Parts: sequence; C-alpha cells; structure tokens
Amino acid sequence: MVAFEGVYSVLPTPFRGGADVDVESLKKVVHLIVGAGVNGVTALGVTGEAARLNDRERHLIVETVVSEVAGRAKVIVGASADGVRTCIEYSREAKALGASAVMVTPPRMLKLNTESVLNHYKALADAVDLPIVVQDYPPISGFAMEAGLLARIAREVPAARTIKLEDPPTPFKTARILVAAGDTKVNILGGLGGVFLLEELMAGAAGVMTGFAYPEVLVKVVSLYRSGAVDDAADLFYRFVPLMRFEFQEGIGMAVRKEVFRRRGVMADGSTRAPGAVLDAGTRAALESVLAWTAKQKGAEWISG
Amino acid sequence: MVAFEGVYSVLPTPFRGGADVDVESLKKVVHLIVGAGVNGVTALGVTGEAARLNDRERHLIVETVVSEVAGRAKVIVGASADGVRTCIEYSREAKALGASAVMVTPPRMLKLNTESVLNHYKALADAVDLPIVVQDYPPISGFAMEAGLLARIAREVPAARTIKLEDPPTPFKTARILVAAGDTKVNILGGLGGVFLLEELMAGAAGVMTGFAYPEVLVKVVSLYRSGAVDDAADLFYRFVPLMRFEFQEGIGMAVRKEVFRRRGVMADGSTRAPGAVLDAGTRAALESVLAWTAKQKGAEWISG
Amino acid sequence: MVAFEGVYSVLPTPFRGGADVDVESLKKVVHLIVGAGVNGVTALGVTGEAARLNDRERHLIVETVVSEVAGRAKVIVGASADGVRTCIEYSREAKALGASAVMVTPPRMLKLNTESVLNHYKALADAVDLPIVVQDYPPISGFAMEAGLLARIAREVPAARTIKLEDPPTPFKTARILVAAGDTKVNILGGLGGVFLLEELMAGAAGVMTGFAYPEVLVKVVSLYRSGAVDDAADLFYRFVPLMRFEFQEGIGMAVRKEVFRRRGVMADGSTRAPGAVLDAGTRAALESVLAWTAKQKGAEWISG
Amino acid sequence: MVAFEGVYSVLPTPFRGGADVDVESLKKVVHLIVGAGVNGVTALGVTGEAARLNDRERHLIVETVVSEVAGRAKVIVGASADGVRTCIEYSREAKALGASAVMVTPPRMLKLNTESVLNHYKALADAVDLPIVVQDYPPISGFAMEAGLLARIAREVPAARTIKLEDPPTPFKTARILVAAGDTKVNILGGLGGVFLLEELMAGAAGVMTGFAYPEVLVKVVSLYRSGAVDDAADLFYRFVPLMRFEFQEGIGMAVRKEVFRRRGVMADGSTRAPGAVLDAGTRAALESVLAWTAKQKGAEWISG
Repeated sequence: MVAFEGVYSVLPTPFRGGADVDVESLKKVVHLIVGAGVNGVTALGVTGEAARLNDRERHLIVETVVSEVAGRAKVIVGASADGVRTCIEYSREAKALGASAVMVTPPRMLKLNTESVLNHYKALADAVDLPIVVQDYPPISGFAMEAGLLARIAREVPAARTIKLEDPPTPFKTARILVAAGDTKVNILGGLGGVFLLEELMAGAAGVMTGFAYPEVLVKVVSLYRSGAVDDAADLFYRFVPLMRFEFQEGIGMAVRKEVFRRRGVMADGSTRAPGAVLDAGTRAALESVLAWTAKQKGAEWISG
Repeated sequence: MVAFEGVYSVLPTPFRGGADVDVESLKKVVHLIVGAGVNGVTALGVTGEAARLNDRERHLIVETVVSEVAGRAKVIVGASADGVRTCIEYSREAKALGASAVMVTPPRMLKLNTESVLNHYKALADAVDLPIVVQDYPPISGFAMEAGLLARIAREVPAARTIKLEDPPTPFKTARILVAAGDTKVNILGGLGGVFLLEELMAGAAGVMTGFAYPEVLVKVVSLYRSGAVDDAADLFYRFVPLMRFEFQEGIGMAVRKEVFRRRGVMADGSTRAPGAVLDAGTRAALESVLAWTAKQKGAEWISG
Repeated sequence: MVAFEGVYSVLPTPFRGGADVDVESLKKVVHLIVGAGVNGVTALGVTGEAARLNDRERHLIVETVVSEVAGRAKVIVGASADGVRTCIEYSREAKALGASAVMVTPPRMLKLNTESVLNHYKALADAVDLPIVVQDYPPISGFAMEAGLLARIAREVPAARTIKLEDPPTPFKTARILVAAGDTKVNILGGLGGVFLLEELMAGAAGVMTGFAYPEVLVKVVSLYRSGAVDDAADLFYRFVPLMRFEFQEGIGMAVRKEVFRRRGVMADGSTRAPGAVLDAGTRAALESVLAWTAKQKGAEWISG
Repeated sequence: MVAFEGVYSVLPTPFRGGADVDVESLKKVVHLIVGAGVNGVTALGVTGEAARLNDRERHLIVETVVSEVAGRAKVIVGASADGVRTCIEYSREAKALGASAVMVTPPRMLKLNTESVLNHYKALADAVDLPIVVQDYPPISGFAMEAGLLARIAREVPAARTIKLEDPPTPFKTARILVAAGDTKVNILGGLGGVFLLEELMAGAAGVMTGFAYPEVLVKVVSLYRSGAVDDAADLFYRFVPLMRFEFQEGIGMAVRKEVFRRRGVMADGSTRAPGAVLDAGTRAALESVLAWTAKQKGAEWISG
C-alpha cells in the first residue's frame, strides 16, 4: 500500500468573477504548489469548493490537475458523496483520470451510525482499487468519528489507512488514534490550515494536508522536523502561525486564501462562488498587516508583504 | 403567478435492489398517484433520495415523470444545491424538461445568514423564469428560517410565494407566516408525512406536499375540508394518522414508505440506496398491524391491510 | 436490582401564571396520575421544565411528589447535570428524599465521547446506591448513544440497566439494543409522547415513560398487551394516536399537555415558564377538535371532549 | 450607562483535584490578573466551568472575586440560564454581591427564535438594574445571533449594549454589527482566546474579554493600539499568537489554560471537573515548546518558558 506522508496541498478552484472555472489560473496554482516541493495535491476538497461544482467541472479540474502535475507529485481527489454509489462513481472516475487516491468523508444522513460509516468505506474499497484517505471533518459530514472508530476502519479496510484529521484538538486526537490503532500502521495528516502542524508532528502525525497558500512553509517545517532540527522547525512554524490562523478563519477563510494566491500572482481573481463570503476592506487591511509582519520574520524574507 | 394549492405527492425513486433506477416502477408509481387525483407531483425531493442520484439519473427521472404525468398534474422538481450556480443549472434543466416549478432549500454552508438565503432565492428568480417552492426543512439545510424571513422572501421574490413547511410545529408556524406576510399572498403546503394535515388546513395552509403512500387520503381530506365538511375531513384524517405517523418515522420512514408502495403493486422492490435504512422483521410486523387496522376504518375499507 | 416495567408518567411542573411553582396543582396532578394505575412517576424531567427550576424548587417538587405518591408507585427523579459532581449531588438529594431511581442523560459538553459518557454513569453508580435510568434523548444532551453503547453501559454499570428511549425510530432501536445487550437484561421504556407505544412493546420494550396527559390509556394499552389481548391493545392505542401526536408536537407540546391537564381539572393554569411557548387560538381549536373526536372512540368515551 | 472597554479576564475556577473549589488559588488568580492591569474580570463564564458549579459554589466564587478585586476593576458575572426566571435570580444575586454587570447568552431551547431572544434580554433588563453583556457564543446556546439581531437588542434594550463576540470570523462580524447598529453606541469585546485581538481592534472592537492566562499581554496590546503605536501592538500580538492559539484549542483549552496558571504559581493544581479533559504528555510537551519559544520573543522576555 502506498504511504501518504509529508505535505499535501488542498487546491483552491479559481473562478472568473465567481462564475466559470478559470483553468489557466488553476494551472498556475498547481505549478506554484508542485514547485514548492509538496508530496501531493488534493483536488475537489472542501477548500476547492467541490460542493459548488457540477460533474463536468469536476472532470475538467481533475484532468487539468493530473496533467499539470505530470507525475511530479501525488494527486488525491475528493470523492465524498451522500450515497455509496455516487462515491464509487466519483472514485472510479478519479482512478480513470490518474488519481493516486480518493479522499472521502462519511456520507451525510440523519441517524447515520458507526456500522453505516464502516460499511461505506468497505463498499468503496471493495469496488475501487485505490487508496482511500478518510477525512475526519465533523462539520461537513455531521458525524463525529471517535479515535476508536478511525482505528477500526484502518484495521478492517486496509485501503483506508490514511486519515486527514480536522477534528480538534488534532494533536491530542492524533495520539489517541495511534494508541487505538496499535499494530495497524495508520498515516495521520493534520489539517486545520496548518495551524497545529508542529504539535501534530510531535504527536506522531505523518504530515499535513491543508490549503495554506504558502506550501513552501509547510514543506520546510516538515523537512526540518524530520531531519531532527526540531527547534528550527518550531521557530519557523511559530512565525507563520499568525498568517495561518488568519487564513484559516471560519466563514471567510476560503476568500482570504484565494486573495493570497491572487497576490502571489497565480490567480486572476480571488472570487468564490456564491454563497461564499466576499472580503471586506477590514479583512483586506488585516491581511496586509499580517503578511507585512510575516515577511520580516527570520526565514520568511522571501514572502512579499 | 401560478397558485400551488391542494395535494402534491413527493415521489419516491424506485431502485432495483438498491442499485439502478427502476424506470418501469417509477412510471407505475406516477400512474397510481396521478390517478389518485393529486394536483401535482414532486420529483427529486428528499423522499426521492435526490442526494444519492447522479446528474444523468436526475435527468432520466424528471423526463420520465413529466412524460408519464402527461399534463394531468403539475410537476415540481427539486433543485436544491450548495451553490447558487448549480441550483440555477438544475432549475434550467427542470424548466427545459417541462417542470411547473422548482423546489429549493437554502444552500448548506457554515455561517450562512439571512441575507445569503435571500440572495440565493433572488439570484435563482432572476436567472430562471419558473415558480419557486421554498422548502423549509431545517435538518437538511442546517438553517432555520423564521416566519419573518419566509414572509420577507415572499415579499421580495414574487416567484417564491409557495412554501413547503416541514419545521414543526407546522400548524403554529403556518399561522405565524400568514400573519407576517400580511397582504402578500403566500401558499403554504404542509409536509411531515401528512401527520398534521388537518391542523395545517385549520391554520390556513393551501394544501400539503408529502410522500404518504396513500395520496387518495390526502386528496379526500383536503376536498372534504374545502367543501365545508370539516367533521368528515377530520374523521377520515384521524383514522389515517396512525398509518401516516408510522410511515413518517425518522431514520426509517423512506424504507417503510417504499414497502407500502411495493405492497400496493407499483414498485418491484422497496429498496433504498445505501446508506439508507433496511427494514427489519419487527418494523414489517408493525406495518402489517397498522395497515390491517386502518383497512377496517370507516372510509378506508379500500385499503388492503 | 429493581425492575422498571410498565407505565411511568413524566410529571409536568404547574406554575401560577408562569411564575411560582403551584404546589396544590402538583398534588392534584400526582393524585390523578397515581390513581390512573401507573407504575411510577418521574419528577424533574424535561417535561417538568427542570432546566428552568432552581435548586430550592427542585427540592420542593421532589418532596411534594414523594409525599403525595405515598408509596403507591415508584418515584424517579431527573438528575442530569453538565458535571459529574452536580449529577451526584442531585442524585444524593433524590435518594435522601425517597426516590426509587434517578434519570440521567449524558452531560452536555463539546467533544464529549464514548468513554466520557461511560465514565459519567460509572462515577454516578459508584457514588450513589440507586438505580439509574439512562435517558437517550439526543437533542438535550447533544450526544447520540448508539445501541452498542447503551448495551455496553448496561453491561458495565449494573445500576444502569433501564433506558428511557427517545431517539427515533424507537421500535427499531429497541430491537437493536436488545440484540446488542445479549444476555444482559435491559429494560427499555419507550418515550416520544407514547406515539409509538404499541410498536415499542412489539419490539420488546418493558414499558413506557412519557408525559401524555391521559396515563389511563398507557396503562390500559400495556395491560391489554401483556395479557395477550394484542388486538384490543392495538385498537385502543391507534384511536389515541391522533391525540398523542398532537400533544407531542415539537416546540409547543409542553404547553398543549399542560392545557390538557388544566382541562382535566388538576392544574389551575396551563402556563409554562418563559421562554416556553404560549398556545395560540389555532392550536386551542385544533386541540378541541382532536379531543372531541377521541372522546367518541370505542373505549375512550370517558374522555370529555 | 457604564462603558465596558479594554481588557476583561474571564476567570478560571480552580479546584482541588477536580473536586472542591480552591478558594485560595482563586484569590491568587484574581490577584495576578488585577495586578496585570485589566479593566475587569468575569466570574462564572464558560471558562469558569460555571455549568459544573452548584448554586452555593456560584455564590462563594462571586463573593470571593468581588472581595479580592476590592474595587480595583469591574466584576462581570455570568448569569446565563435556560429560563428567564433563573437568569433574573442569578442577576439579582450578582448585583447584591456587588457585580458591575452580568453576562448572558440566549437561553437554550429547541425552536428558540428571534423574538424569544429579544424578550429574554428585555425581561432581564426590566427586572434587574444592571448592565448586560450579551454573549454571542453559538456552540453554548445553540442559537446564532446575526449582526442585525445584536444591533436590534442594543437599540431596544439600552442596558444590553456590550457584546462579547465569540462567533467567528469575529473581526468581520464586528464590522457588520457596528454598521447594523448605526447611531446606537455598541461596545464589542472580542473573545476566542485573544487569537484575533488585533484584527478585532482594527475592525472597531472596544476591547477583549477572554481567559488567556497572560492578561498582561492583552493589556499591553490594547494599550499600544489605543496610543497609536499600532505596529508595536501588532508585533507584540503576533508573537503571542502561537501561545494564544495553543491555549484556545477546542476540547482541551480549559485544561491547557489552567496548567499555565499552575505554572505561573497561582493555582495549586490545574484540574478541571469531570467530564472536562485531562492533559496528556504530548500536550504538556507541546505547551512547553510554545512557552519556551514565546519567552524568547521581543517584549515577552518576562515569560518563564
């Protein structure tokens, strides 16, 4: 089984004025991110506004991303759906287009339970021969998977031994999952905008999967940490926390993140699709402030404030 | 503007063994329901397991329903989506296929607010010239629309003056919405499996939209009530409440309802798509009991227990 | 261990004009209910507006109820609290005042998990020598206990082998819990206003605990069912379902129920404490209608419509 | 009307081994915090584990805090309750004990609505002559108050013109509330552990109310910002963000915060009451790391890592 370790960037989906998918900008974003040295990219995640795309657009985006990555990194594709059948369809399409894995949350349903969740992953693994990243993000699926259930999924569904963890406190839960999994090897990738990356690594995470618009920093932090330069990793990480936290604001984070990509020159405009948030002047001013400060930090001088 | 009054049946989507859409059964279901004298049918509602269908299946179902109804009743099509754009696409397709109206919930999004909801309906009305049924079903959208907001939508979006009300207590809320709407004419259609139909009518509802598998009863209750035979309407209604309530059980209601259609001979099998519930022996036995009792009631002798 | 079987009435708390506890009315309510032949009463439940009472009032109510019941039935006392410690305090007070058992939901807390819930019941059982009724009512505690967890609590905490089940579909879940519990004897009491009493009994429930204002009917249905007169039990039950359903309406049910007790002459006024709902004219008219119809039914002639 | 501006520290409640209230430690905590130059303290907030205290303990804590503050700062007291009546009782007690204001969330109730919330604050203001801090923390009350409602409360209830804002994105919402309030003067105090303090001030907040265990920093940031030294305020703030964020972790933040107070020598032990979280070794190690780094930052040398 492929091991998913290191840094995975969740891709935003650029739009032209909140309308059509902007394929040219998408290519530039992928180019920047792969150039930053990530281990993989994730298309059609929550950050990619997947819920606001139609099936043709899903296809276009995966095709574009796979082609632009050109084998230089893994490509993980979001395939969550409310029904098992649609989830399998999405996953087959992802595989056909060259995906390295799919990422799947529990299906949304009132009265969902542990067995239904387990069966969902089992049915997917039986139907499609591709690794599955289990996305643990309760606000999206409406179902909270405890550490014990995540460990059980890993044991019973060998294809599903990578977890994208977004259920805080993520460092604490990382440790709980690893204990519960015992001998079963589980790869945990932190999320939450990278805001707890260092602590997740300290707790045993295999890496991080998030949409932070400076993936270079995630790559550097993980690399320093893995090489044993823990203090250097921590120093760099802490200096970027103010920016990460600002970019990860609930309800407006996606718009902030796209604005950062726009400022980095890889997105023609930073619009989200309605009913996504629109940045106000105050948020723009606050973003400028934190970018300017970050650019002055040791190890971050390459950032243009 | 078209007025939506009377009885609208929300259609189930028949599957073969939980897998492919069973078009032949769907036609039979439509035939039975239209023959029962309903004013309209609703395709792609929650009861139709719309969330577990792909775009091709959506198209197939609407096409089949419009063709089978053949102008004898209105056809309302569920077009809810997490993004405005997809909602508009679904609505345009519904219109092109001959729908009389679309039914739309607020989009699902963390931090959704009143203005976003209003803008969602406005943008849809601007883009597609078709009446909109506002679906008030908080567990699906995650957003509770108060009476004042529903009245405001009706005032500001003339295309959106029909409400499918599923937020209990529906009779009480019906009265509140009508007061809040004032001079603006609003049509409220009750829901909740018909379980509060009489009380909704007493509170001023224009009718009911639900998936109860004996639409004949809904038609008869509304017709008696409108003709002034309120006591007869009440007597018939109360005698069917035990069955309606049983069919409307949270978490398993869809499977019960499909089983009733199967017993009525219009559905080859009563399966739902995973992760939908599967009936156990106890639920089947309890269904037999309530059907048998109902069949003995005055005015219900035509039911085969 | 005491077995809790049969019918338990959850007591309303009468207030004078929504203000002070009306002790005289409370005594009359208890008198009527115990006279109806119930096996027990439950004080300080959700229906008793326990969340709107202070500690002195809690004491007064339990004292009054125990004294008025005078050993003729069991007295169960709600002792749910957000912290283990307060839950233990409440339980000790209940025991000192003569309670037969306490009823406890999981504590409310963000990020609550299975182990915390189990520890809550264990700590309570260790601290207080009194049977515990586990209340499974997810909207109150915010935590959904699956059948497996309820069975595990029963196995690991012998004092906690009675479950008040309010998580629909209750008949289906009753069957699931009994299977999961295996050899461990568990007593399941249905809830939900009695609206699924027959089906819960068919699924193996030991009885019912709810606040329906005509406990005589619950007693008669259970008694007929236990004596083997299942059809008679069913016939009586179905005829009362319209009233039970009306009384159990979400958001306004408590006010309806109190109004029924007022009409029965045991409550001076039917007010709830703010922000509880206030009945409107439409709801009163609809209540009259369903009471009048019910009073004409076979076996219900003693009801004054 | 009193204006609430500047820095308010939400007090933790120290316990001895998770059991009794530790009054001596509480006094030390108050002494440290008031010495840090805050404008006020808040007792019985969520951070104070108010939901796990009984009425005697509530009284003891407020009495202790008022006495220890000794007029050097304002004392705000949490008085939230599920019923209006209990909220009024708590508020009267707070006033009698010398509180400067009470802090109140909307009451918890299924089907709560805008009018009920408004009536709750009106009834409290009518009954008790004390300023009210409106706490906007949706996870606790289960009700999301939009900017328009908060502005309406401020207009219609003059006693309730201070808002403790904990509904992210708080800087964005601060701006929206101020626009909605128009000519009505509203004081917004940020929350969320201080993690967005700078941005809240930039958006027009009057200060901050939170439980961060280094209130000296909040005082310094606000003071620099108010004096026009915005860059210095920002520099100090950003350097403390990693620690603030760590202390504010969902599900474990309270335990982290108490551990920091313990390390600062003002709390005998850092225990929370069950079912509160217990720190694991990993979280302790991560806390040491971020404290050590923070202590090396410019302006933070007084911190003992």
